Amino acid sequence: MSPSQSNVPLAEQIAWNADGLVPAVVQDAVSKEVLMLAYMNEQSLRLSLESGQTWFWSRSRGELWNKGATSGHTQQIVSLHYDCDGDTLLVKVRQNGPACHTGAYSCFYREGSASGGAASSPAPSSQPEDRFGPLSRLEATIAQRDAERPEGAYTTYLFEKGVEKIVKKIGEESAEVIIAAMKRDTAELRCESADLIFHLMVLLREQGIPFDDVLQELEFRHRKPVKKD
Amino acid sequence: MSPSQSNVPLAEQIAWNADGLVPAVVQDAVSKEVLMLAYMNEQSLRLSLESGQTWFWSRSRGELWNKGATSGHTQQIVSLHYDCDGDTLLVKVRQNGPACHTGAYSCFYREGSASGGAASSPAPSSQPEDRFGPLSRLEATIAQRDAERPEGAYTTYLFEKGVEKIVKKIGEESAEVIIAAMKRDTAELRCESADLIFHLMVLLREQGIPFDDVLQELEFRHRKPVKKD
Repeated sequence: MSPSQSNVPLAEQIAWNADGLVPAVVQDAVSKEVLMLAYMNEQSLRLSLESGQTWFWSRSRGELWNKGATSGHTQQIVSLHYDCDGDTLLVKVRQNGPACHTGAYSCFYREGSASGGAASSPAPSSQPEDRFGPLSRLEATIAQRDAERPEGAYTTYLFEKGVEKIVKKIGEESAEVIIAAMKRDTAELRCESADLIFHLMVLLREQGIPFDDVLQELEFRHRKPVKKD
Repeated sequence: MSPSQSNVPLAEQIAWNADGLVPAVVQDAVSKEVLMLAYMNEQSLRLSLESGQTWFWSRSRGELWNKGATSGHTQQIVSLHYDCDGDTLLVKVRQNGPACHTGAYSCFYREGSASGGAASSPAPSSQPEDRFGPLSRLEATIAQRDAERPEGAYTTYLFEKGVEKIVKKIGEESAEVIIAAMKRDTAELRCESADLIFHLMVLLREQGIPFDDVLQELEFRHRKPVKKD
């Protein structure tokens, strides 16, 4: 924290545009997906900080707008950052239900290509080919299912049933991992391990814990190895 | 894909503002951190799509700007989405070096609070942290412990004891995950989830299964969702 910043109210550090607005990028604090972009004026910024929920300025309706006030799809603010030149906000939230008025988890559900045309992308399609991509995509898909609750999806079923059903599955899948390992059945263990990880990630979403938090815990231990029996 | 969208060039689907610009949120495709927000005009959008690198319109300099052309901190475009009302772009990139001109990994390194003042976020690191790095390092460490069996290390102890001890720990840790979730104890669940993943990775090593195999299994299911009770 530089001394020059420390006592200046946040609103005075924002480079408001000619209309007295600043764009605010809203990101899911758990899955880290970008959900939407909306605009804040000074009053909506103050209301957001005071209430802990997002308030915006609707440019089309010309009025203050408490996101989710009518739909119930509110956003609980986890953190609020502003960028190097103070002309953009980044708001990390816990999203209740879909963020988009269309019912989509994120407003950015359409992918554009150079040749023209747009493809709707239900799940982030062209992700980088990083080694852990499957976990990243899985976490995003689980967050999307949680928000949209598509009928017939197994993940929807788990969220509808709630924590007791999910932890029952954790118990079941860990038992199946144990059985497969005792048989030294590689194919079965591979499947049961995937099942266990899937249900663990559903549980983490249900409890509002980003997978990153668990990774950080692993990282901490890696640096400071545990001794336990 | 809706038929009305499929043959319309992307630029015609964008709701350009009065200055002919659209805000573009730039996100790290690997770590999923939001890096910056900049503006594109039609020409910079076309250049971005053609070159596969980000091009913006600099509002302060009034010129086209190929991000990283001088600094080398370029952005390789992985995907480009636009939002429900077509007035914002989301560009997922592979970021080379820091995204911010200050040398910070992301431009959003300052956190704002209601009371006023700004706190700089946990050390603006210039290195984009690999989000799944801890898992990769953990797998490598486990493999090293298995090979070298250093005296006193907990992982050595597990390998010496063998499969029965390891699966016993899987059972124990999954029970602890269940208990923490039922209590909704976030800190405990975070720790127990890390414990469960650690022991699962030790088991996979003991059975000669690369973690990649489990990730591939998860990827396969993500594409072809499972229905089970």
